[in-house]
Parts: sequence; C-alpha cells; structure tokens
Amino acid sequence: MAWSNVASNYKKAINRDINPDLASERKSTFNIETLTNILDGGAENTRLRRSVEEEIHSDPVLSRENIYFKTRQERYEGSVRNTFHLITKIKQKGWINDGLHDYYIYRALGGELALNIHGVFLRSIQALGTDEQVAKWIPLANSYSIIGTYAQTELGHGTYLRGLETTATFDVDTQEFIVNTPNITATKWWPGDLGKTCTHAVVLAQLYSKGKNYGMHPFIVQIRSLQDHSALPGITVGDIGPKMAFENIDNGFLVLNNIRIPKENMLSRFSEILPDGTYVKRGSDKINYFTMIAVRVTMIRNEVLGALIKACVIAVRYSVVRRQSELKPGEKEAKILDYQTQQHKLLPLVATSYAIYFTATYVSKVYEQVYQEIKANNFESLPELHALAAGVKAFATEICSNGVEVCRKACGGHGYSLFSGIPTLYTKVVASCTYEGENTVLHLQASRFLIKCFAAAQLGHKLSPTTAYLSSPDSGSCQANSHVDFLNPDIYLKAYQHRAYRLIASAAKKLHSLIQSGMEEYLARNSTSVELVNASITHCHYTVVKFFVEELKSLGDPDIQKVLKSVCDLYALHGIVTNAGDFLRDGYLSGKQMEMVTTAYLHLLSVIRKDAVPLVDAFDYRDEQLLSALGAYDGHVYQHLFEWAQKNPDNKKGNSIFENVLKPYLHRGQSKL
Amino acid sequence: MAWSNVASNYKKAINRDINPDLASERKSTFNIETLTNILDGGAENTRLRRSVEEEIHSDPVLSRENIYFKTRQERYEGSVRNTFHLITKIKQKGWINDGLHDYYIYRALGGELALNIHGVFLRSIQALGTDEQVAKWIPLANSYSIIGTYAQTELGHGTYLRGLETTATFDVDTQEFIVNTPNITATKWWPGDLGKTCTHAVVLAQLYSKGKNYGMHPFIVQIRSLQDHSALPGITVGDIGPKMAFENIDNGFLVLNNIRIPKENMLSRFSEILPDGTYVKRGSDKINYFTMIAVRVTMIRNEVLGALIKACVIAVRYSVVRRQSELKPGEKEAKILDYQTQQHKLLPLVATSYAIYFTATYVSKVYEQVYQEIKANNFESLPELHALAAGVKAFATEICSNGVEVCRKACGGHGYSLFSGIPTLYTKVVASCTYEGENTVLHLQASRFLIKCFAAAQLGHKLSPTTAYLSSPDSGSCQANSHVDFLNPDIYLKAYQHRAYRLIASAAKKLHSLIQSGMEEYLARNSTSVELVNASITHCHYTVVKFFVEELKSLGDPDIQKVLKSVCDLYALHGIVTNAGDFLRDGYLSGKQMEMVTTAYLHLLSVIRKDAVPLVDAFDYRDEQLLSALGAYDGHVYQHLFEWAQKNPDNKKGNSIFENVLKPYLHRGQSKL
Repeated sequence: MAWSNVASNYKKAINRDINPDLASERKSTFNIETLTNILDGGAENTRLRRSVEEEIHSDPVLSRENIYFKTRQERYEGSVRNTFHLITKIKQKGWINDGLHDYYIYRALGGELALNIHGVFLRSIQALGTDEQVAKWIPLANSYSIIGTYAQTELGHGTYLRGLETTATFDVDTQEFIVNTPNITATKWWPGDLGKTCTHAVVLAQLYSKGKNYGMHPFIVQIRSLQDHSALPGITVGDIGPKMAFENIDNGFLVLNNIRIPKENMLSRFSEILPDGTYVKRGSDKINYFTMIAVRVTMIRNEVLGALIKACVIAVRYSVVRRQSELKPGEKEAKILDYQTQQHKLLPLVATSYAIYFTATYVSKVYEQVYQEIKANNFESLPELHALAAGVKAFATEICSNGVEVCRKACGGHGYSLFSGIPTLYTKVVASCTYEGENTVLHLQASRFLIKCFAAAQLGHKLSPTTAYLSSPDSGSCQANSHVDFLNPDIYLKAYQHRAYRLIASAAKKLHSLIQSGMEEYLARNSTSVELVNASITHCHYTVVKFFVEELKSLGDPDIQKVLKSVCDLYALHGIVTNAGDFLRDGYLSGKQMEMVTTAYLHLLSVIRKDAVPLVDAFDYRDEQLLSALGAYDGHVYQHLFEWAQKNPDNKKGNSIFENVLKPYLHRGQSKL
Repeated sequence: MAWSNVASNYKKAINRDINPDLASERKSTFNIETLTNILDGGAENTRLRRSVEEEIHSDPVLSRENIYFKTRQERYEGSVRNTFHLITKIKQKGWINDGLHDYYIYRALGGELALNIHGVFLRSIQALGTDEQVAKWIPLANSYSIIGTYAQTELGHGTYLRGLETTATFDVDTQEFIVNTPNITATKWWPGDLGKTCTHAVVLAQLYSKGKNYGMHPFIVQIRSLQDHSALPGITVGDIGPKMAFENIDNGFLVLNNIRIPKENMLSRFSEILPDGTYVKRGSDKINYFTMIAVRVTMIRNEVLGALIKACVIAVRYSVVRRQSELKPGEKEAKILDYQTQQHKLLPLVATSYAIYFTATYVSKVYEQVYQEIKANNFESLPELHALAAGVKAFATEICSNGVEVCRKACGGHGYSLFSGIPTLYTKVVASCTYEGENTVLHLQASRFLIKCFAAAQLGHKLSPTTAYLSSPDSGSCQANSHVDFLNPDIYLKAYQHRAYRLIASAAKKLHSLIQSGMEEYLARNSTSVELVNASITHCHYTVVKFFVEELKSLGDPDIQKVLKSVCDLYALHGIVTNAGDFLRDGYLSGKQMEMVTTAYLHLLSVIRKDAVPLVDAFDYRDEQLLSALGAYDGHVYQHLFEWAQKNPDNKKGNSIFENVLKPYLHRGQSKL
C-alpha cells in the first residue's frame, strides 16, 4: 500500500499494459485500420508512412525526448543536426522527393528541422532564374556548399509588397547592382535561417535603372563568408530574438549598406537589365503567383491540421483516463468525457479535424486540376483557386489554432504543463494565422472574388463550381419539421448556402449603395470590410461542409461511412448552433427549428462519445510524435507526468539553489523549532 | 540618406521625441489625467501609485530589462532576489500592508516575484490555526525563518476536493499524525514555491482517527532541512517541470512516505483530535469559504484585467504607428487603425477593459458589504456573493485571455515576437481560466444559484439584487425603432436582461421536465449542462453591462462621461452583434433591429477611433511595465525592435555557431563561386 516506496523505482511497479479506462474505449463501431488507410489515401501509403516513421523513431540522433527542457540554442543546434543527419539518411534509404516522404518526415519530427527556407531559396532560383543561373546556383545549394534564405519581409513592410523599401540600383559603369537598406524600416526582418545559418539570400528589392523604378525584383546576395561565416563587409545580420515558439528557427534581420553584386545576380527569367541599363520584360510571371497558392494549400494539411488532430488525440485520451467529481452520487468519480460540457468542448473539434482533413483533400484535387490547366497555358481557373486557397487558409488556420487552445484548457491544470504537449502545439500553430498571408487580408481578398462573382451572377453569367450557388439563391425558408430532419445533409447544406448567399449579397448591396450615394470606392470598401470578411468566412464554412458531405459519398466502407456521417452532422450542426444569429436573422430558420438543431446536436454528442477514442486513434500518431504525458497510447497519464518531472534538470541542481539563491537571504530562528 | 551607416550607432540618429504618428493621436476630447484619477480611485491613489512605481523602476536590482532572454532558472533566481530586495525596501520606505501598496508593486513588476504561496501559507495558519499555533508559526514565517507553501491539489485531483487521497492518521500511542501519499495520484502536484523553495507546507489530507475518516484537514509538515535545504527523510520533492508561462515559479510535487508530525501540527481552530483520538468539531469554518471568494474577486483586477489592458495599450499604439497598404489609392500607406477591420478587432477590447474594470470595482463593493455582514455573523448574502464571484471570475478570465490573443494577432508578424510583450501576457493570463476554479465548473456552480433563484421567483419569493430581474420577466419585444435608439442603455439593458432570463428559464424548464419524465437528477443536470453554462454566461454578461451603466452615472466629469458612455454603448452593442442568435431566437429583436444594432455599432467604431490612444493612455502603464517594443510611449516601434534584437545574446556567439554547429556538415565547392 505504501506507494511512496515506489517513488524512486516506480518503473517496475506500474503496469505497462494499457490503462483499463482507456483500453475499454477502443471497442469501435468500425475498423480503425480501414479508417487510417482512408486518411492516408490508401493502405500502401499507410505502410510507407509507418516505415518512414519507424526509421526515424528508431534513430537516437533524431529523438525529441527531453525537448521541453531545451534552451533556444539547443533547439537550434538540434535542428541543424537533425537536418544534416536526415540528408544522409534520405540518400542511404533512397527515399524519393515525391512530396509524401517529406511530409512523413515533417510529421514524424513535428517540424523540428532547420534550413526550411533553404528550400524556398532553391525553388525561387529554379522558378525565377535563367537556365545559366539555375546551372550555376542549384548544384551549390543542393550540395549545401552554400545555404540560402529568401529575404522579402521588412521591419516596416509585410502584407503590402509594393511598399518594400530595399533598393537595387544598376551601375552601368561597373555592370553591378548596388543593393541598399535606405531606412530602418527597410531592414529585412523575419526570414528563417537568416539569423545564424545562411551564407546567401535571395533579396527582394526595388529595381532602379537610369533613375527609373521598375518595382520588386529578386537578387542573389552573399551575406556571410564561406571561410569563417562572418558577415561580409557592409552587412549587419543577426537573430531577431525570441518568439512565441519556433525556438529552433533563427529568424533574422539584415541591413545592406550599399552592397555591390554582379549584374548576373539578378534572377532574370522574367525580366532583365541590359548592359546599357535598359529594362526588358520577358513573358508572364503569373506562375509565381501559383507558388504562393501551392504553399497555402499544402500548409493546411502539413502544418496546421496536424496540430489540431494531435491536440484532439491528447485531450480525448486524457478525458477518458481523468476522473473528476461524482456524476452519480456515491459512485466512483466519472471520466470527464462523460460530462456533456466536456463533450461539447472536444467532440466538435474531432469533427472539425475530419472536416478540415476532407477539405484539404478536396482543395488539393482542385489545385492539381488547375495546375494541369496552367501547364497547358490556360489561366482561367486561377482566380477561383486563388480565392479558394486564400479563404480556406484563413478559415482553417483560425479554427485549428483556436481549437488547439480549447483542447488544452479542456485538460485543466495539467493542460498547462508543457508535458501535456498542447502548449507547444498552440504557440506554434497560431503563427499560421499570420504567416503566408494575414487572415483578415486573405478574407478580404477572397471576398473581392465573391463580390465579383455575385455581380456576374446578377448579369446572368455562368459561375465557376465553388460559387455557382450565387446564381440560384434559395429565397425560401428551411423545410425541417423535426430534429431528425437536421440529420439530412441537404437540409443543413441549404441552410449554409442560404447564409453565405445572404451575407455576400448584403455586403455587395451595401458596397454598391455607398458608392451610388457618392462615397469614394476605397472608403466604401473600408466601411463594408467587417461585412466582407464575414461574407468570406460564411462562404468558406459552406464550402467546408459541402466538401465534407461530398467526400463522404466516396467512402466504400459502410461502418466508416456511418460514423463519419454522424461526425459530419455534428460539424454542421455545431456550426449552426454557434452561429445561430446568421441563420435566424432573416427567418430562414425559425426559433423553433433552432431548438431542433440544438436537440439534434446534443444527441449527436452522446452518439459520437462512444467512438471518440477510435476516431482520434485512427489518425495514427505515435507517442514520439505526440510528446504528451496526457495523450500517450497506454493512457498511463500520471506515471508519465511523474516520470517526466523526475527528468527535469532543475531537480538535479538540488542544494545549489539553496546555497546560491536562498541562503543569503534567510535569517533563521531555529531555536524556536 | 544611407541609413545603413546608422545601424551601428542609430541611437544618436533617431529622434527620441514622440513619433509624430502617435503624438497626433494624443489630442483627446477629455482630460486624460482626470480619467487616470478615476481609474485609480482618486488623485491621491494616482500619486501614491506613481511614487511606488518610481521607487521600483529607478531601482536597478528590480529591472526587468532583458527578461525575454532569460532562462527558467534565471527567472526563478531573479524573482527570489526581487522578493527579498523588496522586503527590505518595504521596511525602509515604511510602505504599509493596505492592499494598495501590494497591488502597485505587483503591477510595477508584472508579478515577477517569488514566495507568492508563502502568503497563502501565512493566511491559512492565521485563519485555521489556534491562538497558540498562530503565536508559534506566524513570527517564523514573517521573518522568513521558514518558507511555506499550501499543498492541496494532487496529481489526480483538482476540482473535487473530497477526492483528495493524502492521508493523516492519528497514532494514539505516540500522539503523532502519520501523513502519507498512498498512491501515485495522491502526489501533491502544482503548489507554487514547493519545487525548490519552501521548507514547510500546509498539507491538506484526509484525517483518520480510530479507523474513521473525518474528511479534509490542514497539517503543517516540514519538507526540507533548515540547515542545508535537503529533503527530509521520507520526502520526495521537486519541480514539476516547464509550463506555458510562470517560468519564475517553482511549482512542485511532493510524495510523503509515512511522515510523522506532532499532534500540534494539525491546524485546530475549527476541529481537533483529543489525546485519546476523539474528533471534536468547533464552530463554523464558513469563513474559509469566504477566503476563496476574496481571491477570485481580487485576482480579476490584479492579475487578469491588467493583461488585457496592457495588450490593448500595445496594440492600439502600434496600430497608429504601423502603416500598411494604400487605403486611398496613390496616397501614403494608411495607419492600420484606420481600417475598419482593425477597429473591429481592437476597440471592443478597449471597451471590454473598461467594462471589466467597472465590474471589478462593483464586485469589490459588494464583497466589502458582505464582509461587514459576515463579521456581524450574518451569512445571508454569502450564496449570492459566491455565485457572483464565481460567474464573474469565469466570464472575465475567458474574455480577457481571448482578448489578449486578439490584440496580439492584430499586431501581425511583430505581435509574434516576444518583444511585442503580448505573447508573454497571453501565456500567463490564460492560466487564470483554470486556476482558482476551472471556468466551466464555476459557471455550473453559478447556474445552480440562478436556477434556485428562478424557482424561488416562481414561488413569489423576493430575490437578492443581482437576480431580482428573474421575478419580473420582460415578455414583450424590443421597442427600438432606429439605430439611434440602441444608444439608449435602457434599450440594450432590457435586451440583455431578456436574454439572460430566457436562457435561465429555458434551462430550468428543461431540467425540470427531464426530472419529471423520470430521469435521475444527476443525469438531468448533466444533460442540461451546456445550457446551464450558457445561462450563467448570459447572466454575467447582463451583470457586466448593468454595472458599467450604473458606474457611468457616478462619474462627475461630463467629457469623460460622454466618451465612456460611447465606450459602454460599444461594449453592449458588440455583445449583441456577436451573440445575435440569443437575441433573435424568440423574436425579442427582429432581423431589422439587428441591422440597426450593426449600423450603430459600426458607427461607434469610427467615433471611438478618435479617442483610442487617450483611452488606453489613461490606464497609465509605464514602458517598464509594458516591456513592449511595439507599445512604448514614444511610438518608436522599429527603433526599439532593432535595438532589442541587438541585445540578443545569441548574436554575441557569432562564429562559434559556425565552428560548432554548421561547419562539420558543410562541404564546400568554393571554386565555383
């Protein structure tokens, strides 16, 4: 009984089998492995992913154990070590560069890697350089003889690219560009790998020739010596300091004091300066625009959604192990997932994970299709894809980040410990609301497209698939007569469609009437911008529900179809309950119908409760990826917390804290004790 | 023009006057100093606060410069140093222990102090100890001859106190208690000051005597040697590891292996074990209950609201310095606060800061009143105060935490840098949603009181002030005919009252009908719990609007009354817009009226925009308290960011990173360059 004897050697004492409270939750109404295969895009992918993960997690060099005790410097050094170690491993194993392997590696290591922007440096040279430039620089970069970064954002300039202030002035006499930071706000700020690592940078700068400004262009600038890595003369470079997360990344700053680079260092696939200083534009650089979209499409699955899923895995598993308070008086304390309030916090987020997963899959397909069109020089679908990617990026990053924090809080006090694994997920994923396009700016961009489509529909033009509903508004009201009717996807899809239509139409109308009343367009847009953002959000929300419903149809397995149908219903009805005003405003739903939605929603919570653990298990994250004492597969929450606390290096310092810190201050009155 | 020359010595070059973009915003429609005096509770308090702050900020020992570069250990040691240094300073200056000085010190140092739980240790002995126990222990604790903590929470037990497992068994033979940790889940976990600092603890344990359990009681247990600070035999103690914030606090764990303590160490004001093992209860310990309420009341102003206010100060100031994108084509880039979407993010939070400030003031008054009653042995108002404090604690911590994150994101990329000051505010303040009562649990507690009051009202009983509206429901609909009508507090107060009434009545009805239908009460409560939480939230929301409206009336200065009237309107209307469904559901507001609310709300944004900077300046936070490059009083955002980055110790390591980290990996092909 005296457990305290166990404290020092509890490893022997605890049962390393599965905690029975968790084990009993793993009976599912469907085959978990089949769902895992679906989520991986096929059983073959599952096998490949697991083999990559096994390689990585059995390699001690790549272990992330003890990551919560590491300093920024240790995290940085560890990432550099991981990255170079992996470069060798990838060669040895013959892993190919097919997008999948990269993703599996990233997933296994939670992005604890360095040289992320070196890849952007490479791709920008490939995309923007001439054949000669590619031939010169790519082999150097591929062999890591040089390490590059991509320096665009400045201290005073982010969103608005035309506002960048760094200049590159052509000097006809020497056939060089003089690259300069004219002002403190022009300091390059934020590029990853710049602070400590890179030797070269693709610098975005305002091109000047013969006194004339030709706008933003890319230039290769050497930053540091290849001999001793010191900053070259005229260059001030360093790390911008600690951030909310990304401790392993050396985001940096760069001041260029009239640095001279040869004419050949301007990346010249699409434009060039002739020796006499004449500017020549060549072809269209629309394809670059496409690169930005590609990043937004892939980041949702690879960086953003994974954080929400992992938080759900951790919080759901913990919630069937953690017991707190008597539910039924006199009985054992209840699993916290049996409280309706806990289900209300977590299960809609499990549903959101699936919704965003299927959305990301769908958007990827659209992307592939448009990519093929573009290769055939057909740019017609580009605006739609751009709007879709912008809106979905903003929508998904926002709900995934907020969702992670809800999961964390749902774990109570222990959720606040880094050992839960969730604080680190949150502080990292929330950055995605800002990078690759600030979310409000993206929603405003997407709304421009929606307003255009709305106007086109008014004129009777045919619209592209994602906005076709703007041509045929449903002006009636919801036909549901009971709470069961709300489990019909047609019913809730129509409600979402109606809501999006109403908000887009209403924003368009306001904008139009303000302009008609004599207001300048820019002011009218600004005065409508809160509504325009809402219009984009409701369009995205409709799109996500629609994609989920459509992807459901293609699932072969009836058990899985059944459980995911409930998950889809839960996602859709939760969205109606939490945005009730939008659906009630014009009477599309009546108050009575809203009560039916609430009833259906609360009932679904108890239905999905039963499959909660299998639904998160299916995402197949290993303990080495979750890094969570609360979410480990075996459910031995308290043993893991206790064990991890023993590893805290602070506990090793022992009495030195007393000697060095406390003792000088304490005046003792020991005789009294 | 070549700014880059300035990089190394820009200090000389920049203008240390106020950034003109910020200076031009400081013309206000009211006297800022007068508002500051109101917020401080009088000009005398303002003077006192400023004198305390001046003392602290002119003392180099207490400087928090470079805090963003510090390790956990450095933060801990710094806090210990700060605390002992302050103990001396407080004596020297003759600062009295009146609540105000403590608050001003906490505010000045942002809580970067140690021994916070030592105070709880002291107060619990004072409250729970006999006169002899107080006489023995208090002088030792006051002189820091011993350092104490309060060990209640266990690894497996938080919310549900009755579930705590630590035992204290009386041994009649030796007249000792045997205090023991019977199980891993009984490990004391989380107490502050326990990990590295304390020598003693008040341990909460299940009292056993003669085989019978008498429930939770407090015992003083010595943990560490006073000679060398090592753990005493049978005690396993240490730090629980890193958390989302509170790097300076050594939250700890404690395993007690049948530790024997003398009978006199049970704190015995309210109950005692006689030498023969008989348990004797003495008087009521209701007063303890009151201590918990006191903490919830004071933490809102002292810990929680300050974070939101500071985030608002930083984000608002930054938003008039940061310029991004052309608003009017061809003109200078616009201040981001001139975008409606930015106003929509920040100004409701400025309004929330004022709303919660006035609420905290009001709740403190109620608290004082009830305290006087209780001293006269009248406990009648205690349930109401308990519910009020629980609900407001949950409501305020939630919106303040979320608000800080909105402010941070509204600062774009730079908001993600620790130098913005906001990440650190968020990761710390969000803990308040969990500690001192988890928010969902608190709302459920508050809703119990509301349901009781509702039932009492049905029976015609008179209700206490905060719930009196449950006796007289407004069954009609909103009388507003134009958007201007919504600037009438009577109109929006009635709407909030109606909403709260409807949600409380609806939850009560559901609960009642489930029980009537034969469901066991505990299941019925659980099946209604999502609605019960919403009932409490809407009641709190109404209460906050009501307190704000009432406090407005007492403001003497007409200019300030005018601007704060608009702030109050904005707070109230923003709440209606963002919770539209609740107001539309039963037709209390029509869709058309909701449009009027939106119009009134958007118009208020442009009104308050003009006073935005004065409204945040009035809270009078100094740069040493904001610790923000973005929010400094002088508005030299970019200079501060640049300067702070230069101080990054990582930048001092220079080439060592190359030698130790990068060089071993790089294979160079320099001949090609």
